[in-house]
Amino acid sequence: MADVGQEEDFEAARGKALAVGAKKFYLQDLKREFITELIYPAMQANCIYENVYLLGTSLARPVIARGMIEVADTEGCDYVSHGCTGKGNDQVRFELAFYGLRPDIKVIAPWRIPEFYDRFPGRQALLAYAAEKQIPVQQTAAKPWSTDENLFHISYEAGILENPNVTPPGDMWKLTSALDAAPSEPERLSIEFKAGLPVKVITEDQKTFTDPVDIFLGLNALARKHGVGRIDIVENRFIGVKSRGCYESPGATILRAAHMDIEGLTLDRNVRALRDQFITIELGRILYNGTFFSPEREFITSAIPASQRTVNGVVRLKLYRGNVVVEGRYSDEGLYDEAQSSMDELGGFEPTDTTGFIQIQSIRIKKWAQSNIRKGQGGVQAKDVYGSRA
Amino acid sequence: MADVGQEEDFEAARGKALAVGAKKFYLQDLKREFITELIYPAMQANCIYENVYLLGTSLARPVIARGMIEVADTEGCDYVSHGCTGKGNDQVRFELAFYGLRPDIKVIAPWRIPEFYDRFPGRQALLAYAAEKQIPVQQTAAKPWSTDENLFHISYEAGILENPNVTPPGDMWKLTSALDAAPSEPERLSIEFKAGLPVKVITEDQKTFTDPVDIFLGLNALARKHGVGRIDIVENRFIGVKSRGCYESPGATILRAAHMDIEGLTLDRNVRALRDQFITIELGRILYNGTFFSPEREFITSAIPASQRTVNGVVRLKLYRGNVVVEGRYSDEGLYDEAQSSMDELGGFEPTDTTGFIQIQSIRIKKWAQSNIRKGQGGVQAKDVYGSRA
Amino acid sequence: MADVGQEEDFEAARGKALAVGAKKFYLQDLKREFITELIYPAMQANCIYENVYLLGTSLARPVIARGMIEVADTEGCDYVSHGCTGKGNDQVRFELAFYGLRPDIKVIAPWRIPEFYDRFPGRQALLAYAAEKQIPVQQTAAKPWSTDENLFHISYEAGILENPNVTPPGDMWKLTSALDAAPSEPERLSIEFKAGLPVKVITEDQKTFTDPVDIFLGLNALARKHGVGRIDIVENRFIGVKSRGCYESPGATILRAAHMDIEGLTLDRNVRALRDQFITIELGRILYNGTFFSPEREFITSAIPASQRTVNGVVRLKLYRGNVVVEGRYSDEGLYDEAQSSMDELGGFEPTDTTGFIQIQSIRIKKWAQSNIRKGQGGVQAKDVYGSRA
Amino acid sequence: MADVGQEEDFEAARGKALAVGAKKFYLQDLKREFITELIYPAMQANCIYENVYLLGTSLARPVIARGMIEVADTEGCDYVSHGCTGKGNDQVRFELAFYGLRPDIKVIAPWRIPEFYDRFPGRQALLAYAAEKQIPVQQTAAKPWSTDENLFHISYEAGILENPNVTPPGDMWKLTSALDAAPSEPERLSIEFKAGLPVKVITEDQKTFTDPVDIFLGLNALARKHGVGRIDIVENRFIGVKSRGCYESPGATILRAAHMDIEGLTLDRNVRALRDQFITIELGRILYNGTFFSPEREFITSAIPASQRTVNGVVRLKLYRGNVVVEGRYSDEGLYDEAQSSMDELGGFEPTDTTGFIQIQSIRIKKWAQSNIRKGQGGVQAKDVYGSRA
Repeated sequence: MADVGQEEDFEAARGKALAVGAKKFYLQDLKREFITELIYPAMQANCIYENVYLLGTSLARPVIARGMIEVADTEGCDYVSHGCTGKGNDQVRFELAFYGLRPDIKVIAPWRIPEFYDRFPGRQALLAYAAEKQIPVQQTAAKPWSTDENLFHISYEAGILENPNVTPPGDMWKLTSALDAAPSEPERLSIEFKAGLPVKVITEDQKTFTDPVDIFLGLNALARKHGVGRIDIVENRFIGVKSRGCYESPGATILRAAHMDIEGLTLDRNVRALRDQFITIELGRILYNGTFFSPEREFITSAIPASQRTVNGVVRLKLYRGNVVVEGRYSDEGLYDEAQSSMDELGGFEPTDTTGFIQIQSIRIKKWAQSNIRKGQGGVQAKDVYGSRA
Repeated sequence: MADVGQEEDFEAARGKALAVGAKKFYLQDLKREFITELIYPAMQANCIYENVYLLGTSLARPVIARGMIEVADTEGCDYVSHGCTGKGNDQVRFELAFYGLRPDIKVIAPWRIPEFYDRFPGRQALLAYAAEKQIPVQQTAAKPWSTDENLFHISYEAGILENPNVTPPGDMWKLTSALDAAPSEPERLSIEFKAGLPVKVITEDQKTFTDPVDIFLGLNALARKHGVGRIDIVENRFIGVKSRGCYESPGATILRAAHMDIEGLTLDRNVRALRDQFITIELGRILYNGTFFSPEREFITSAIPASQRTVNGVVRLKLYRGNVVVEGRYSDEGLYDEAQSSMDELGGFEPTDTTGFIQIQSIRIKKWAQSNIRKGQGGVQAKDVYGSRA
Repeated sequence: MADVGQEEDFEAARGKALAVGAKKFYLQDLKREFITELIYPAMQANCIYENVYLLGTSLARPVIARGMIEVADTEGCDYVSHGCTGKGNDQVRFELAFYGLRPDIKVIAPWRIPEFYDRFPGRQALLAYAAEKQIPVQQTAAKPWSTDENLFHISYEAGILENPNVTPPGDMWKLTSALDAAPSEPERLSIEFKAGLPVKVITEDQKTFTDPVDIFLGLNALARKHGVGRIDIVENRFIGVKSRGCYESPGATILRAAHMDIEGLTLDRNVRALRDQFITIELGRILYNGTFFSPEREFITSAIPASQRTVNGVVRLKLYRGNVVVEGRYSDEGLYDEAQSSMDELGGFEPTDTTGFIQIQSIRIKKWAQSNIRKGQGGVQAKDVYGSRA
Repeated sequence: MADVGQEEDFEAARGKALAVGAKKFYLQDLKREFITELIYPAMQANCIYENVYLLGTSLARPVIARGMIEVADTEGCDYVSHGCTGKGNDQVRFELAFYGLRPDIKVIAPWRIPEFYDRFPGRQALLAYAAEKQIPVQQTAAKPWSTDENLFHISYEAGILENPNVTPPGDMWKLTSALDAAPSEPERLSIEFKAGLPVKVITEDQKTFTDPVDIFLGLNALARKHGVGRIDIVENRFIGVKSRGCYESPGATILRAAHMDIEGLTLDRNVRALRDQFITIELGRILYNGTFFSPEREFITSAIPASQRTVNGVVRLKLYRGNVVVEGRYSDEGLYDEAQSSMDELGGFEPTDTTGFIQIQSIRIKKWAQSNIRKGQGGVQAKDVYGSRA
């Protein structure tokens, strides 16, 4: 069993496992590697799936799969198994991770074995079976959805959520305060980044966190209190099925806002643009689709350090009822220059230079416009906005 | 003068213009074309600059520039002029738009003429001159920053904001309620999209908007009331200078959230991914950098309609203290299929298919893993996360 | 049976089909739609797979699959079938095309049915069976490879070619002259393009082709004679297996060279760059992977016309022993301007403008260099080329 | 003066420099760093500009500029100067390189100083002046074009080439044999790559090269003899002007063909695709536009090593009259597997897996097709190819 920060009674799990027939039970604390090896690189790259989802389930799978293969190596196993359904993303993520680490491993996936799924055609049937056999399970009729929790987030899907027009009931949300139940007073904090990684968090009540695990859990506590990090989306699974998911990613939501802000102050424009278009999007896709242990992930992540070399500085934030408000930021990096950007002084800037800049930029545009005009397709009358030309 | 929805006394402007020596004064109402030709395509493409800025100033420049060239054509002008500084983005946007519409036009940009800027080395000097000559100006010592307003947004920059660590004073924000001053009760609304465009908004008190201008202004009113749409960032200007800007984009923030959500339900995964990586990013860059009247914009926007053909449906939203919460969505498009995504029924899905899918996906990953292992670089011990391999 | 221009005795095929038990035989001439609906858009977009392969097999599959579905609709069929192996690309291309046109069709793929492939575990077994049953087949022991031919190309794979270090025997190549057997005199031709499409070809002996099919076949004849269009590569199949293929794509190789050249003269730089990065690469991937009848193909191809609006002009070429040499090109489009590019006259160009252009471009680079120097990481000593910094 | 491998009498140059007034003369041999720090990374990334140009001039500029700044540092210079025209790319490349290495350097560019270019409005005027003052210059009336030569390539532009329809005279080409003058017998060689770099070349007459400089110059000699590497294009300069250029890049053309081929055998499909779309294109743009000493180059090149880790193997080639023919390749890397790709054996492959693969891939395509059909926009009648739907 992997401890990736989920709220769980591990001793009860151990007992249950041994009671239902397991020969051995391993519990691995993977929280630190989950944060430092998966979450932090993803935050450095601002990864997000379909502009909305912070990838909390995806991020945990590689460390869990690696832990499983470690145990399989130790125990000399030829097979590993998982309980993912045959329609979801997690089966792919687990199995591709297994194969990327140990290409000869064999996988037993009961939910894809006809004898199994014909007998248990859905979670309800399995819940009934568990009830019949008195196997304790968390999901109940009172909580008609499925969850996946770790220290990064919790997900909710299936059950009543399968109708994408059903508003999730207020008591579904487990990690974060409701917006109207959050404190009526804002709370401030600052986050210091070095090479794009959070290295120090100072809270309004002067608590300081510097250890990666402490930082992440500290941000989680603040964000949960202030209702930060809920989303409700319809996403596209890797297998091509659309699916509705609700997520709470409290600390990560703060961290993302802060990291993107400090990049504004400290990251070169072109590096940022190239990174956004390539690393951010591709690494998000890699994580979502489950190819973390793959040549393309090795390739893509190799470019992260060079993208973060200058991302050093401090962001000051305010949390209030779901909002993460940036209140200021500073850095010694020197890429921002008040005098240079000022409207009130030249700051070493020759305004005539911009004339040349614009003239040169206009060369090919003028040629195009002249060609349009010659063809009767140019000027203010060509009020095409997009698509067809007049 | 262009009416792009800014709060302004146009008659006073007319009087002032004629008083200080203008021969003629044109006022053009460009609100509708601003919305339908600039804002809506950008919203269809989910354009955003550096992940944060909704491009409110950029979007207005092409319609203003086109209006100016129309007047220049009418009046037979050889020159147009603008008052943008020599360090900003707007000079580029205006001039490249002028040239894209009328390549032979000549531009007078006083802030880049040494005789001018040597005499007025910054906005303060000009304010002093205006005061001396009794030319009424909006910016005063009491408002030590510069603004640009239109129906999409207002921007604040310069002055005290040039220190990126200065928190903007609460009374700077003009359009939206402060988060703690917004109503303590949420307000709900629904937005219907056809081909990615909002075609009907129904508010909680059953007001219905269907005209594009009514819709946009209606969303603005709701968003302003509930404190939606403030940001504070350091961005990279086209000329390569970093600059701090604060923005309020109320209605657009709602519209963006709703549009992205309905795309989740109605847009194919691959179209969405390709559009995000190419159209969204490139059109955002084109708008920001001011090359709207250019061959690349014509090219990029020509792909928007095909990307939005299936984006039809309704999103239900809740506004509350800065938050835009999606509460549900529905569509007849049929790309989402409850039975297919369900965890509780097969829905025509053969779970064994996924086994084949995963096996095929794993072929090249296994080959890579075998090669790693042969070289002693694979397996669970290779705890590289990114960059260097063990 | 689809006539996509392969050299084949269709009457013999009809006889053979009816003899081995077919109830009906359809022959469709798909050459024109193959050229105008598949090949020409791909040439407009300069599609190429892995920088080398012109996609000749991929391009034919959609028209063949559409023809099959047409017949299936006419005959009221519930099933279609194909003879592709279970390891290749074509099975995917055919089946995804079937499903994109008729999502309820069922597919019989014998090479993936265990009863079939256990009996015939490879092409050799099937050849033996055919010999035994006196079913005439083209592939013989004397030609130990597999081919696919159409008017665009011929492919060779499998058999002795499976060792990627085996040089193909000279007599394998069917369409094009060997380089040393090609004429010792070059031959010239010109191709005129309108909107990126070839509309007129004039040969050295003054033959003129204007019909799309005539043009393509005319180019084929010239290219074959002069040994143009052979390649030998290892490529990556969609299923993730590496595979060695040899191809002859004669006319297409000329057309590609000419189209890319006329784009140099007539296509805006930024449109070209965006098109290369997005359309060219994505459409190539779509074609190779077989998702022609898909939302992403509809999306991507919708941007082709806007990219080709100005691609009008004539290219003059010389063919000689495998080489396609561009000898000159001209156009009325007006984007190229001799005076402007001249080193010998100003041509309306202000050289001082470039100073401003460079100064503005240098702003962010200087900031970065200053930051490097402050950290002791800049200047000429920082001889990093890539990867690690000193 | 930089020795980047151009054919030049450096002693004559020294004499000329001192004769016309230079106080000191430095000659730096930059050939090795040109090859190892510029050319080789670009070849590893398969860089090419606008699909045609191998960037030979661009690649030399950073080492020349760095050499100049080294001398400027040594001599305590405040200024550097160059003789590039005000319309070309090289002025930008030199100056941005200067600024990226020494942001406070000042640049004198005579061709952009009005006093200078008004007196010498073009190269002809300068040639006349040189003749009058008896300053020896290479360009003469008999060679009415401009060249730039280094060990990678030679470029020809300007003069009679400014008409893009003028075929270059045969005697213009300096480095490579004419196709019909090249040997009538082919010549074979093999190139071994390690981590994407050529480490051993063995020629048909059993010469072996292993030193980077020897390898590159050895390939040059072979390619020149066999007429390999000529192109004639219209390209887009960074300043937005279209320009005609002819180039000979002999050895580089062989190296590129071989490197791309060995990548087919040894590089993972997804890494190749991502690298092609991002690194190849962006690094080519960076090199062409002259931002080698920039944060984005540092970022982009940091990803090259991870992309080349598995690119190990040998390519066998044949050169013949302009053609570089791949005859075979082999590698121990193990990503290619004959049994797996074979059509004649299963090779551990389960054909039924592909059924699942295709079924899963078809899920979203079927949904889209069903939606099309419901709307009357689907099936075989929807013969849209691109753009408009029926």
